[in-house]
Amino acid sequence: MAAMKVHGNPLSTSTQRVLACLYEKDVEFQFVNVDMAAGEHKSQNFLSLNPFGQVPAFEGDLMLFESRAITQYIAHEYSDKGTQLLLSGSNKTMARLQLWKEVEAPQFDPPSTKLVYELRYKPFFGMTTDTAVAKEHGAKLAKVLDVYEARLAQSKYLACDHFTLADLHHLPNVQYLMGSSAKKLFESRPHVTAWVADIMARPSWIKVPDMLKESLKTWDTI
Amino acid sequence: MAAMKVHGNPLSTSTQRVLACLYEKDVEFQFVNVDMAAGEHKSQNFLSLNPFGQVPAFEGDLMLFESRAITQYIAHEYSDKGTQLLLSGSNKTMARLQLWKEVEAPQFDPPSTKLVYELRYKPFFGMTTDTAVAKEHGAKLAKVLDVYEARLAQSKYLACDHFTLADLHHLPNVQYLMGSSAKKLFESRPHVTAWVADIMARPSWIKVPDMLKESLKTWDTI
Repeated sequence: MAAMKVHGNPLSTSTQRVLACLYEKDVEFQFVNVDMAAGEHKSQNFLSLNPFGQVPAFEGDLMLFESRAITQYIAHEYSDKGTQLLLSGSNKTMARLQLWKEVEAPQFDPPSTKLVYELRYKPFFGMTTDTAVAKEHGAKLAKVLDVYEARLAQSKYLACDHFTLADLHHLPNVQYLMGSSAKKLFESRPHVTAWVADIMARPSWIKVPDMLKESLKTWDTI
Repeated sequence: MAAMKVHGNPLSTSTQRVLACLYEKDVEFQFVNVDMAAGEHKSQNFLSLNPFGQVPAFEGDLMLFESRAITQYIAHEYSDKGTQLLLSGSNKTMARLQLWKEVEAPQFDPPSTKLVYELRYKPFFGMTTDTAVAKEHGAKLAKVLDVYEARLAQSKYLACDHFTLADLHHLPNVQYLMGSSAKKLFESRPHVTAWVADIMARPSWIKVPDMLKESLKTWDTI
């Protein structure tokens, strides 16, 4: 196994997703900061790592991009280390994890990413939040969280009774939104509230802002 | 294995994705038409199958929703039947399939779905295409297809040299867009053009419009 490198940016939720996974697996890696303000993610060098010009990119025994493809690879590659983030067993069992991973990406991620942009990134970069856009995506996220509330009333975590990639993938957007007015969307749903408190308190996740603070002194201010 | 049922709608690209997979695997199933015009997908009965109120929903030995979770389950469950839609072998090999599946969902799907809506659904339902929106998403799709062109210059299919789920997931949106002005985005890229011609000609895929014509006489007119 070559030394693993994650090329990313501390503010990027996709970068944070991969870091959270690496900390859960307790494996060593090198973080390479990509200066997006300077357009480094569109340089020829970076495009050879990720042709879409987006962070993160992963370099190890193979080259990968797309945060959820990277986490899946790491979770399999280090299945005997750290937290077991997958569901092993029958195809039926694995399908439960696949289902809730597939829910996160098209259902939770789009409205929550829009909200992170409107409620966190825009103020941080001196731009004005579009309250109509925030309201529209807040309503969409509320409907998703209704489904989560029902699911989490039956199961401690989304896929099963232990923490998996399906939960982990939510962490960066949840972290940002719990520091915004969208917090109320989570707090008005008791099972979602308990789940959020649980996953945000994971020792692995707490390391992400700590590690990122060293790269960029913005975590507390964004 | 209980008799499999796919609850869906013939016009729905997500429904078509699941049907294409079932035909590739050559397994028997029952198609249950969900009358979306009558709001059947928001009925309590349907919400018990998919709490998001979206087609398709899958009923078999387990209940599933989200089209890509369903195709993954079917591809594993019937790995010894029909076309091999997965990549077996090392984690590194499997990561290639995961990568290109993860590219399709957040990169290809959003702009192509917007274009399908503007260029196919809207005219079909007597609505006016918003040309500015179509242009915006056409430009986004063009950038994605630039990456595909480079990838397909090196590999006959996206993940490897044989057809996999990573290719299959594209079929419904590609089929709609090849019957629209967005066709030129594909045809201006030779390797993408060859790939599109190849995957659209698959016997399994040809069955999808044929099967749907029996449910709804709209495939030729939309």
